[in-house]
Amino acid sequence: MAVRAAVAGASGYAGGELLRLLLAHPEVEIGALTGNSNAGQRLGALQPHLLPLADRVLEPTTPEILAGRDRPHDVVFLALPHGQSAAVAEQLGPDVLVVDMGADFRLKDAGDWEKFYGSPHAGTWPYGLPELPGARAALAGTKRIAVPGCYPTAVSLALFPAYAADLVEPEAVIVAASGTSGAGKAAKPHLLGSEVMGNMSPYGVGGAHRHTPEMIQNLSAAAGAPVTVSFTPTLAPMPRGILATCSAKAKAGVTAQTVRDAYAKAFADEPFVHLLPEGQWPATAAVYGSNAVQIQVACDEAAGRVIVISAIDNLAKGTAGGALQSMNIALGLDEATGLSTIGVAP
Amino acid sequence: MAVRAAVAGASGYAGGELLRLLLAHPEVEIGALTGNSNAGQRLGALQPHLLPLADRVLEPTTPEILAGRDRPHDVVFLALPHGQSAAVAEQLGPDVLVVDMGADFRLKDAGDWEKFYGSPHAGTWPYGLPELPGARAALAGTKRIAVPGCYPTAVSLALFPAYAADLVEPEAVIVAASGTSGAGKAAKPHLLGSEVMGNMSPYGVGGAHRHTPEMIQNLSAAAGAPVTVSFTPTLAPMPRGILATCSAKAKAGVTAQTVRDAYAKAFADEPFVHLLPEGQWPATAAVYGSNAVQIQVACDEAAGRVIVISAIDNLAKGTAGGALQSMNIALGLDEATGLSTIGVAP
Amino acid sequence: MAVRAAVAGASGYAGGELLRLLLAHPEVEIGALTGNSNAGQRLGALQPHLLPLADRVLEPTTPEILAGRDRPHDVVFLALPHGQSAAVAEQLGPDVLVVDMGADFRLKDAGDWEKFYGSPHAGTWPYGLPELPGARAALAGTKRIAVPGCYPTAVSLALFPAYAADLVEPEAVIVAASGTSGAGKAAKPHLLGSEVMGNMSPYGVGGAHRHTPEMIQNLSAAAGAPVTVSFTPTLAPMPRGILATCSAKAKAGVTAQTVRDAYAKAFADEPFVHLLPEGQWPATAAVYGSNAVQIQVACDEAAGRVIVISAIDNLAKGTAGGALQSMNIALGLDEATGLSTIGVAP
Amino acid sequence: MAVRAAVAGASGYAGGELLRLLLAHPEVEIGALTGNSNAGQRLGALQPHLLPLADRVLEPTTPEILAGRDRPHDVVFLALPHGQSAAVAEQLGPDVLVVDMGADFRLKDAGDWEKFYGSPHAGTWPYGLPELPGARAALAGTKRIAVPGCYPTAVSLALFPAYAADLVEPEAVIVAASGTSGAGKAAKPHLLGSEVMGNMSPYGVGGAHRHTPEMIQNLSAAAGAPVTVSFTPTLAPMPRGILATCSAKAKAGVTAQTVRDAYAKAFADEPFVHLLPEGQWPATAAVYGSNAVQIQVACDEAAGRVIVISAIDNLAKGTAGGALQSMNIALGLDEATGLSTIGVAP
Repeated sequence: MAVRAAVAGASGYAGGELLRLLLAHPEVEIGALTGNSNAGQRLGALQPHLLPLADRVLEPTTPEILAGRDRPHDVVFLALPHGQSAAVAEQLGPDVLVVDMGADFRLKDAGDWEKFYGSPHAGTWPYGLPELPGARAALAGTKRIAVPGCYPTAVSLALFPAYAADLVEPEAVIVAASGTSGAGKAAKPHLLGSEVMGNMSPYGVGGAHRHTPEMIQNLSAAAGAPVTVSFTPTLAPMPRGILATCSAKAKAGVTAQTVRDAYAKAFADEPFVHLLPEGQWPATAAVYGSNAVQIQVACDEAAGRVIVISAIDNLAKGTAGGALQSMNIALGLDEATGLSTIGVAP
Repeated sequence: MAVRAAVAGASGYAGGELLRLLLAHPEVEIGALTGNSNAGQRLGALQPHLLPLADRVLEPTTPEILAGRDRPHDVVFLALPHGQSAAVAEQLGPDVLVVDMGADFRLKDAGDWEKFYGSPHAGTWPYGLPELPGARAALAGTKRIAVPGCYPTAVSLALFPAYAADLVEPEAVIVAASGTSGAGKAAKPHLLGSEVMGNMSPYGVGGAHRHTPEMIQNLSAAAGAPVTVSFTPTLAPMPRGILATCSAKAKAGVTAQTVRDAYAKAFADEPFVHLLPEGQWPATAAVYGSNAVQIQVACDEAAGRVIVISAIDNLAKGTAGGALQSMNIALGLDEATGLSTIGVAP
Repeated sequence: MAVRAAVAGASGYAGGELLRLLLAHPEVEIGALTGNSNAGQRLGALQPHLLPLADRVLEPTTPEILAGRDRPHDVVFLALPHGQSAAVAEQLGPDVLVVDMGADFRLKDAGDWEKFYGSPHAGTWPYGLPELPGARAALAGTKRIAVPGCYPTAVSLALFPAYAADLVEPEAVIVAASGTSGAGKAAKPHLLGSEVMGNMSPYGVGGAHRHTPEMIQNLSAAAGAPVTVSFTPTLAPMPRGILATCSAKAKAGVTAQTVRDAYAKAFADEPFVHLLPEGQWPATAAVYGSNAVQIQVACDEAAGRVIVISAIDNLAKGTAGGALQSMNIALGLDEATGLSTIGVAP
Repeated sequence: MAVRAAVAGASGYAGGELLRLLLAHPEVEIGALTGNSNAGQRLGALQPHLLPLADRVLEPTTPEILAGRDRPHDVVFLALPHGQSAAVAEQLGPDVLVVDMGADFRLKDAGDWEKFYGSPHAGTWPYGLPELPGARAALAGTKRIAVPGCYPTAVSLALFPAYAADLVEPEAVIVAASGTSGAGKAAKPHLLGSEVMGNMSPYGVGGAHRHTPEMIQNLSAAAGAPVTVSFTPTLAPMPRGILATCSAKAKAGVTAQTVRDAYAKAFADEPFVHLLPEGQWPATAAVYGSNAVQIQVACDEAAGRVIVISAIDNLAKGTAGGALQSMNIALGLDEATGLSTIGVAP
């Protein structure tokens, strides 16, 4: 019997990508689709690429609708602005699986939350990055999932094996480029096509980006000790994709082979994370639209650093694909159900 | 039992897109993959987005390999440069379905072929644009398919209903913009990223483009009388997509409603061609990676013209998706098997 | 002694481009810069590419400030939303040169204005497209200039010689692609980078675009008889540039040579319009940032049409450059002062 | 009397940008233009944006032509592939100013040259980055100039003040994104528009990029002690621009204010380097086509690092503009002659 899924926030980029993937998921039936300012509009006008849903009309985001009026939903995905999920989630019963694609339940430390988001901390849910040590066990059977941020997905997958294997010093330096969909669909002047085409620019420099504490949380857990993160995000002239260049000082005795072996072992059984053959480098175009993660490692002996580069699709593995992967685990389905490692290129 | 398919020319853009779609086709098993200059290379290096095929190695394009050494292939796709398909095809037996994605067997008029391609005419195969009148009957059970050109796909679907319903004069004016993948993967200076980004430019102006006689052939057939075509292709700064703006003088008494009704009727049962609701216009981004065709019509009373605009993905419906759709018909499968109307956006 | 120039609407794209060009104009001194919602802000934050003006602060758009408080302005440029210029202009004295970069004073026919803009017609000023027959005489010494629309600039230059020389039938068909800056800097969802990158889409189809009557006005004047225009604008994934593909049925006896000769003659003495050598086609990248116009002609004998393609920079020759060129004429300066035919490429 | 300048390698991107700038230089007269495979072709076909030079024909790169047949050249610019400048330069007399835009004479250490370029070291010329300590004195009156690499320009300007003021530890970590013109005009498959649009990818990871020793040379000189550099270049989907994100561990007691003060002082009198106001970040679009450098600094206290970000146009300040700036100094002209701080945006 099909899993019935509702999507709150179906008009945005995360909601749209989730619907694209749900349409291809063999076990899921799409239930209510809600929006706020867009309630009452045809989905065909808001998400013109989702032709099979073109005639669906957005409903308002209310507890009744998300619970399911005619038939209850088994899963409710929340693709809402940060800080709005908690209020909606607490009105949903304990038996429905709630998958929060926002930030509300990602952080364990209330102080971090308050510092970066400026509101009271709502709590912490099982973290939807199955590849992290221990994550799958926490996700199995859970009724609440906090989907990771897009940058933390790319960065944590790139660096956790190095920290788990004690290969590098606890001071990570990360520069990542993201496509513009990561900034959402709200119309802001600096996100206009005229502004972003032909342009690379940084933002949130110096530790100001909200994804920083999430990376620290993940990498410190892998290291078993505090890790500092210097994170610089940049906006790249493309709609999708994150390329994360991550590095840290190599510990004594670490060689290119040590690093390669550790990563090969870490990802040997992972269905979505691919350590590329030597000589091939990650490219965001290669994972466009797919749930795959491309990873490559290097050891710069002269500079004494291990460099790890990862490429993901920020909307797929970085948001909606990661959400579905975790949902599959929570529901006891095969983890890869409905998810693809095939990109759309060129 | 699976349909076993070989692909000649697996390293190019058309071949890569075909493989992407074949991987998602539930009835197909991928057999031999061949290339010429790239024979011996891993597909992972040539098509890094096709992760499930990364370790496959390209073989040379020989009759033995295309026939299938261990087990015979049921279908052979030819994604070869124009003029090379005939020699390969004649070495394949009459029982194997040969789907030519090149131009060799599209034109009925040998003079047209010789004028535009400069070599002897190889013949004419059933034409793989199922939506054209009579096309499905010719494709059912055939062992030879000529896949249409990408521009003729976009243009013929946009205009054939107007000609079939006798709404417009037999002088079509077409300006189309194509993404750069239409020009293939051979490295040429004018196709460098530095040249194409931020740039719109025309080519093959004044009737010089090889797709012109193919459009004339299709539209004249629909009209039952000769149609002239003024076709101007332009290169747009995007990897994929064709937006075709097509128009012709309206015949007396033709109104916006007449046109809309004719198109609604023509495409009422088509799984892939979507006449958009009034007020919504085709966009190449909405069909990115999908087999869908978006169409919208307008009637400019002041100028006395009917304007029809279509958007397709040149590699999908315009090449590889169209090839699969026709293959499905030829093999007696449901026409939409393995094909999607869902685009990847943004 | 320097020409002192004020710019109303200095925070937008047209205003920014005008300032870029004014900074390079040897006879101009930049006076007041005004905005409305942006008054009080540093220009460095609004137009970060104009480093020499970074510390200038925008003032409100008032008659006193535009007249010049300390010293009077000789020229006032109005880069305001359509319909707002008339009210501002009537408060400026008859001795100051007012250059309206909006649409308010372009059209001669009040009915056209009201139909397309929905407000009372403000009047008609000398039209700032110097290359049109008779335009320079009307501009010399004038105190009021209506700068043409960007599309009408590209299209009128492409087609007026054909109409002036009676080479084509009075039914023009035009499809043009524009960069996104033509849509301005106001943040709208469909202009987000995520939406426009990788996307070609039409708008204002079927005669709905406001630039249509302006084209008809120009081409009919050149023909000495009414010309109809079927105009389809499309939005292209690039910040700047217009590529206009224009065609009309050839009159009897017209050959490729007739056309070429007419165009060579029409533009022989023009400093900014370049009929390209045979075999070379216009490209928007080649005129990026310049006041140049690239034109090429073709005669499609099979289709019986003359095709003319033009490329301009919509913000330069299409708006701010055209404004300066006309200002130069009005002030008795050399027409090309401060204007360049050199593009920035790649 | 005008400075007469020849350009060897006039068909490439560096040569084209140099010509664009030379056309705007009031003291320069353009002499011979040479190419190799392109000798005999019109410049209009090769550099269609340089309309004033469209009818110039490329000559072969010979000593006689570069010396000047009718009248001697005062300056010869070499925009040749790496390793080819030395042979050409030694045939030019000691009185002509030779400006090498290639790598041949940048490095002081012969071992570095041989390791990264694989050929014998040709020597070391005065280094054309005037903003570095001592550079102007070495350039004044010189007859030989080695123009820096584009990445070393962006990175050295970003970090030398931090090292000169002893603010950071001698281990720099740099991730930079470059537009595709940095890879040149030679047609290679991975540089096709279809490949680069929508794509971010790294290359030369782990210290393999040839610009690494040049950065080490500059930063070590500023520090007065060896500095290690971990450099990761990435290819961004834009034609031009470099955004360099540079960081190093802060020394004890260094604060945001210390850093800001040091940078304000270092660039106080620089005509082209702009330390942005707090809160504004560099953007490659803001320096498009200009010789300006945008710089911003941040101090990440939690991570203990100083972050400096710079944006340049790789072809302008990063190559041709830097070459002209140094030529001006060598010839005793005002350093900013013919160079602009105004970008072309959007």
